[in-house]
Amino acid sequence: MEKPLKYAVFGAGSWATAIVKMLCENLDEIGWYMRSVYTKEHLLKEQHNPNYLSSVEFHLEQLNISNDINDIADYADVLIFAIPSAFMHSELEKLNIDISNKIIVSAVKGIMPESGLLVGEHFHDFYNIPFENIAVIAGPCHAEEVALERLSYLTISCFDLSKAKAIAKNLSSDYIKTKVNDDVVGVEYAVMLKNIYAIAAGIAHGLGYGDNFQSVLMSNSIREMKRFIKKMHKMKRNINNSAYLGDLLVTGYSIFSRNRMFGNMIGKGYTVKSAQMEMSMVAEGYYATKSAHLLNEKNKRKTKLPIINAVYEVLYENKDPKKVFKKLTEKLD
Amino acid sequence: MEKPLKYAVFGAGSWATAIVKMLCENLDEIGWYMRSVYTKEHLLKEQHNPNYLSSVEFHLEQLNISNDINDIADYADVLIFAIPSAFMHSELEKLNIDISNKIIVSAVKGIMPESGLLVGEHFHDFYNIPFENIAVIAGPCHAEEVALERLSYLTISCFDLSKAKAIAKNLSSDYIKTKVNDDVVGVEYAVMLKNIYAIAAGIAHGLGYGDNFQSVLMSNSIREMKRFIKKMHKMKRNINNSAYLGDLLVTGYSIFSRNRMFGNMIGKGYTVKSAQMEMSMVAEGYYATKSAHLLNEKNKRKTKLPIINAVYEVLYENKDPKKVFKKLTEKLD
Repeated sequence: MEKPLKYAVFGAGSWATAIVKMLCENLDEIGWYMRSVYTKEHLLKEQHNPNYLSSVEFHLEQLNISNDINDIADYADVLIFAIPSAFMHSELEKLNIDISNKIIVSAVKGIMPESGLLVGEHFHDFYNIPFENIAVIAGPCHAEEVALERLSYLTISCFDLSKAKAIAKNLSSDYIKTKVNDDVVGVEYAVMLKNIYAIAAGIAHGLGYGDNFQSVLMSNSIREMKRFIKKMHKMKRNINNSAYLGDLLVTGYSIFSRNRMFGNMIGKGYTVKSAQMEMSMVAEGYYATKSAHLLNEKNKRKTKLPIINAVYEVLYENKDPKKVFKKLTEKLD
Repeated sequence: MEKPLKYAVFGAGSWATAIVKMLCENLDEIGWYMRSVYTKEHLLKEQHNPNYLSSVEFHLEQLNISNDINDIADYADVLIFAIPSAFMHSELEKLNIDISNKIIVSAVKGIMPESGLLVGEHFHDFYNIPFENIAVIAGPCHAEEVALERLSYLTISCFDLSKAKAIAKNLSSDYIKTKVNDDVVGVEYAVMLKNIYAIAAGIAHGLGYGDNFQSVLMSNSIREMKRFIKKMHKMKRNINNSAYLGDLLVTGYSIFSRNRMFGNMIGKGYTVKSAQMEMSMVAEGYYATKSAHLLNEKNKRKTKLPIINAVYEVLYENKDPKKVFKKLTEKLD
């Protein structure tokens, strides 16, 4: 019998913590890398993450926790990254072992801000990971509901469907249903783009637009997302599947979404800088907006992206959100 | 120059009142039929509807209000019906003039409960209205936001696009954007089906399912709606347009939706009867569920409708919502 693959999660935010919880339902031992010595000590003492999903109690015998990224990368065969994209670069810089034979799973809900690469592409380009060893975990899934064991559905994408299935199996439980597909590129773009649309929803809300407009915005967003992804990676996909539309909705309608909150502050008159300072973090959609805009600029035949462009003008060209969104309303239907 | 067509609205609920308000932005005079003598007297004295959208002030010189349905049907060329489907039959029974040369616009968000016919079909079959003179107004649109003049988008559907455009023009304003299409059958089914999905969302919420599940439910709902409508009336349509997906979302995510509220009570343990009594009205989706189910039963090759069937089992077969939805979760993805 083949030796079962060892899994590890990188990161200690809410999504990382939720993924560790899901794996704990199925695996005897999980590697868990976290930067913070304090978080590790607290976990070892109190059996929960002090900062995120602190209601979730872990059994320490299931966890191999370390503050050394190389320890954990060396330990595991399947490396699940759930680190905010803004910190990916500095974390990966610490890696000094060869990971080219590992399976890399991106649970990063964004894009590498320095290069504008998808996380999968980044690992392929810089760590020699073949594409068939790169997977993505997509929602729709608030980590907070995983903590409450509320029924949630995940999609795991990988060119190699047997790998997607193996990962899916280890994430499944009474409260987690999974499906797999091979649209790893499309799903990773969807995960990234939905954050831009959540910012747009937040801006609209902050400006005083109501529920009627929000539904029109979401209806236009999914059509825009479909056009964008089709341009980047043409294949047969149903954009209304949960990994695309479902994930857009759970983020775009959530008042807890950091991206929506960030947009809301912008709509209410905060500058981008002051909104970021107030939130003491950078919303993933901030980088995604720039990336998506640049990717489209590079195309010879540009895709019509009125919503992404509106968010770009507000966030990066310092334009008045009120005026930009007034113009946007003329382009929606 | 041709004489401009005269418009009238039938009904005095929130949606009827919102439509009168929209028309008041464009027309010098609008006919308005309402059953209640009290509502009429109040409107004439206080210039607002006492029961719905009472913040909206009307200019009486623009209104031709009557409690006699024949007066108003005779007066107008374009008859816009915005009466709850449960009352359509008894209201239409009062009609004793020939309306076969009128343009009929359905703003009824449901199906004729007695016959299971779409409102348009009903007028075609029983009033000899040719299909090119039948139109539908679809959202996504909460009447309450029209009262607040919050930007909203409507779709007007008619086989005869020039008629759809004329109606759309008279509904458009600073805060109402309109588009037209010729998918009058598809749009009327969408308007009806979305209420079933809103009931499903309410049941799920009442049972304790969270936002993650809600987004999966909506993602599955739009796919199911697409299959259903395609089976009933095959044509090229983008199900993600606002009239279909947008309307589903504004209803399915609204805590004010009567259909969602009704479902929520069922999920929390009310019987169908007690929920209806508590709400002192029947949610449109209640009839829609039966109709949709029967329509599918009639098909030789049935369409897979797991969500509609689940709602049907709960509402009409007295099955336990908890068990039915547990089974439903296995069929969603």
